Amino acid sequence: MEDVQSRPDSRGVVIDRAGIKDLRYPITVLDRIEGKQQTVGIVSASVSVPAATKGTHMSRFLEVLNDHVGEMTLNTIPIILRDMRDRLEADAAYLEVHFTYFLTRTAPVSGASGLMDYECWFKGSDDMSGERFQLGVTTPVTSLCPCSKEISDYGAHNQRGYISIEIESAPDDEGGPSLVWIEELIGWAEEAASCPVYPVLKRPDERHVTMQAYDNPVFVEDMVRGVAVALESDARIASYRIEARNQESIHNHDAFAAVYSAG
Amino acid sequence: MEDVQSRPDSRGVVIDRAGIKDLRYPITVLDRIEGKQQTVGIVSASVSVPAATKGTHMSRFLEVLNDHVGEMTLNTIPIILRDMRDRLEADAAYLEVHFTYFLTRTAPVSGASGLMDYECWFKGSDDMSGERFQLGVTTPVTSLCPCSKEISDYGAHNQRGYISIEIESAPDDEGGPSLVWIEELIGWAEEAASCPVYPVLKRPDERHVTMQAYDNPVFVEDMVRGVAVALESDARIASYRIEARNQESIHNHDAFAAVYSAG
Amino acid sequence: MEDVQSRPDSRGVVIDRAGIKDLRYPITVLDRIEGKQQTVGIVSASVSVPAATKGTHMSRFLEVLNDHVGEMTLNTIPIILRDMRDRLEADAAYLEVHFTYFLTRTAPVSGASGLMDYECWFKGSDDMSGERFQLGVTTPVTSLCPCSKEISDYGAHNQRGYISIEIESAPDDEGGPSLVWIEELIGWAEEAASCPVYPVLKRPDERHVTMQAYDNPVFVEDMVRGVAVALESDARIASYRIEARNQESIHNHDAFAAVYSAG
Amino acid sequence: MEDVQSRPDSRGVVIDRAGIKDLRYPITVLDRIEGKQQTVGIVSASVSVPAATKGTHMSRFLEVLNDHVGEMTLNTIPIILRDMRDRLEADAAYLEVHFTYFLTRTAPVSGASGLMDYECWFKGSDDMSGERFQLGVTTPVTSLCPCSKEISDYGAHNQRGYISIEIESAPDDEGGPSLVWIEELIGWAEEAASCPVYPVLKRPDERHVTMQAYDNPVFVEDMVRGVAVALESDARIASYRIEARNQESIHNHDAFAAVYSAG
Repeated sequence: MEDVQSRPDSRGVVIDRAGIKDLRYPITVLDRIEGKQQTVGIVSASVSVPAATKGTHMSRFLEVLNDHVGEMTLNTIPIILRDMRDRLEADAAYLEVHFTYFLTRTAPVSGASGLMDYECWFKGSDDMSGERFQLGVTTPVTSLCPCSKEISDYGAHNQRGYISIEIESAPDDEGGPSLVWIEELIGWAEEAASCPVYPVLKRPDERHVTMQAYDNPVFVEDMVRGVAVALESDARIASYRIEARNQESIHNHDAFAAVYSAG
Repeated sequence: MEDVQSRPDSRGVVIDRAGIKDLRYPITVLDRIEGKQQTVGIVSASVSVPAATKGTHMSRFLEVLNDHVGEMTLNTIPIILRDMRDRLEADAAYLEVHFTYFLTRTAPVSGASGLMDYECWFKGSDDMSGERFQLGVTTPVTSLCPCSKEISDYGAHNQRGYISIEIESAPDDEGGPSLVWIEELIGWAEEAASCPVYPVLKRPDERHVTMQAYDNPVFVEDMVRGVAVALESDARIASYRIEARNQESIHNHDAFAAVYSAG
Repeated sequence: MEDVQSRPDSRGVVIDRAGIKDLRYPITVLDRIEGKQQTVGIVSASVSVPAATKGTHMSRFLEVLNDHVGEMTLNTIPIILRDMRDRLEADAAYLEVHFTYFLTRTAPVSGASGLMDYECWFKGSDDMSGERFQLGVTTPVTSLCPCSKEISDYGAHNQRGYISIEIESAPDDEGGPSLVWIEELIGWAEEAASCPVYPVLKRPDERHVTMQAYDNPVFVEDMVRGVAVALESDARIASYRIEARNQESIHNHDAFAAVYSAG
Repeated sequence: MEDVQSRPDSRGVVIDRAGIKDLRYPITVLDRIEGKQQTVGIVSASVSVPAATKGTHMSRFLEVLNDHVGEMTLNTIPIILRDMRDRLEADAAYLEVHFTYFLTRTAPVSGASGLMDYECWFKGSDDMSGERFQLGVTTPVTSLCPCSKEISDYGAHNQRGYISIEIESAPDDEGGPSLVWIEELIGWAEEAASCPVYPVLKRPDERHVTMQAYDNPVFVEDMVRGVAVALESDARIASYRIEARNQESIHNHDAFAAVYSAG
């Protein structure tokens, strides 16, 4: 049976990426407290294709994933990328996986606990420029508008906001990507907001978060600045992208702000 | 060339609906002030297929829509449905179209004006049970939590909410569906909320809406009840479905409530 | 601290549903082969609210879910619903959970195996009309057009289709809902299509599925009929809703068909 | 009333972008045949904020848009960006608008015509690096697998694919962005695919496109290469990004490929 994908191509166009997109897959990720956490990932994987070759072999991406039984961490992703390069005979390999991460959160007064969900992602690449590893987390928060508070006799509009932080790990002592925990990115995001959001709040908690938010008004611009200051001082972080978005309670469009590091 | 769809089928299964889904199409709808408004619709259209026939003729749905050049109103939809029944030789026809509707809204103090968007839909059916016409509108609003206000020394959590109202028109004097304006459904929704949302707010407006929301706290349950009371007393409305949803500013999940009329 | 939600309401409107929507939560479901499977659910839970009461207590939904540590099966959902009625002092309780289910699938010739994902959902209700339990599964399939095959000298357009089956379980011998496996719904859907879809296909497999689909052309109407015939003869199924949808490869809109049982 | 946004900020962080996101707005775009076309846009607009200033004035974005009554073309967008810089006293301004564009398409044999929808976008920026204008179009196409055709005795799997082309205009003779028509990008995409997709196809048309696709098999890699060759030879285009994606009819995940120009 002929291998059509391996036929030559004469157009002289290198393909930057060829692969699979939006594959759902059960994955295991690192959990700071429990060690490991099982969740569901949405995976995209690709390689470059030289100018002289017609196409890549899509089924091999699935075979590589199966070999690693869905373990997706900063330790395994560089290996998965090298396996992709080997099996697909490629100069460059890329992997991106999005997943929901759960964390037990405790209400600030009652101590009532429950599970909060955070949308997270890993991006890994292995190409001419070397190996790179990026971690991203979107943290839901409460934001309360400083202008609304200042100019009104009482009350202040507030809303659910989302702070997305993507960091690229600097190399650690052994040359691998430095470990930065999902929990740390969540912490930096919440620090920069008016108040964290919680899964379970009893009445004393609701009183507490209402007043905490009112005491800590922030614009969407303040939130990205607050996170930027925290990231700048951390040697494990080579570069970052910070975006915040408020589901404005007084408009039907969102407000957003972004700070991108030079790196 | 054989008409495969018209071949017989021996399995004895009537098909309730066969047709096309998620067709984007430029449409014209009624505008209370301007007369007409041009927008983009997402259209689904279907007919029933008798047990003895293999399938329907999908291309004819497009032909019927083209004949009506995208005019979608409570006057044209019954005609489109009859055309679909005729052209597709069907006992029942169904049409659903979702679209964004724009309305000029004026800020409460400064008078600054801008365009607000509302997600709307029409559902029409023509089958054994007769002709039916339904209008739906989702209105964005501000909601401020009565419990948070009551139990806190200052502030109150608030958020963007969405009130969806779907009404079925009762017959008017000539037997057609009674005209209820999109603008009326928006009005009822805003009446039931803490405050409307606006496209443009200058500082004096922001002060005004902040305090208006604080003065009118409502639960998601209050919003659906408020709308229900308004709809119950309107003879043009045969039945309704009301749903409200708050993008809770203190949680990462939404709160919702619904009232469905008996009809 | 006052319980604002328990205040009286004088408008005389019963609220059909009040609760939480789109809560992400790690859940465990039944797996025919492995016993249990861990995945991520999107949960909506609600209760009715009597006309005389202002609102429900949203935090208690989370508490009930926590008590059951995310176990979502036809055995636990009736208990969760009763707990919701008790804890929220309600006449009616509703639960809906959507999740991705994974199944190891083996390629038809090479035997290469991998994980396929299926979107599934449970709906449970406990109200005046009794207890109900519904299972839904969307199965991706290949469909090949009989008309295109018939009228062309060679080739036939085909595409990815999705067959959604929702069944309501009839009571079993002990009065609980009859067990119907997710795997059975997937089987009925694939039987009615031109060919199953697979996670991993090597070249001999690709040859096999290409020819299998060409040998089994079906319209979207055929797919819903095929499933209807299978469901009609199964005593465990009280009622059903079948919908099929083709991502037509020759159009930018989808074709769809539906059969709804009388029940 | 104090202008809180204009207060100083001492953290020393320049904000790359602050503005509004996902505003729906009725817009007018250039239409090669009709001159103008009215549609609905989803708009994001932002500016940079100097390190020493607390925030931007969100309502002014709406005011600028209102001044231009939604006219969004390669001629107006540079002016809108300059207005944004002026009104918001900013060093950099960014605009992005996504919209559905409709084109009348005629079936290849019967001549039956209908409206096809294409997702399009403009990106404009005006910052230290000068003025830039980008146009993007996603064109739905049919793709038929060369491998499946080659190794099977009959048939070949095919599917709906989407080719996304984003080009940056080179300056024209007067220094503005060179005009490249949406219709041209659609043409290049369709040339690179197995067959165009159409809104209305009668039986003779369906026969034609079935056989045309079978006669022109292409991998997702071939589609991006085909477009790259066309774009490379066009002096109006400064740089480009090409992505293709197939809704594989034999899998539940997509295949994709990308070529990014050096620019």
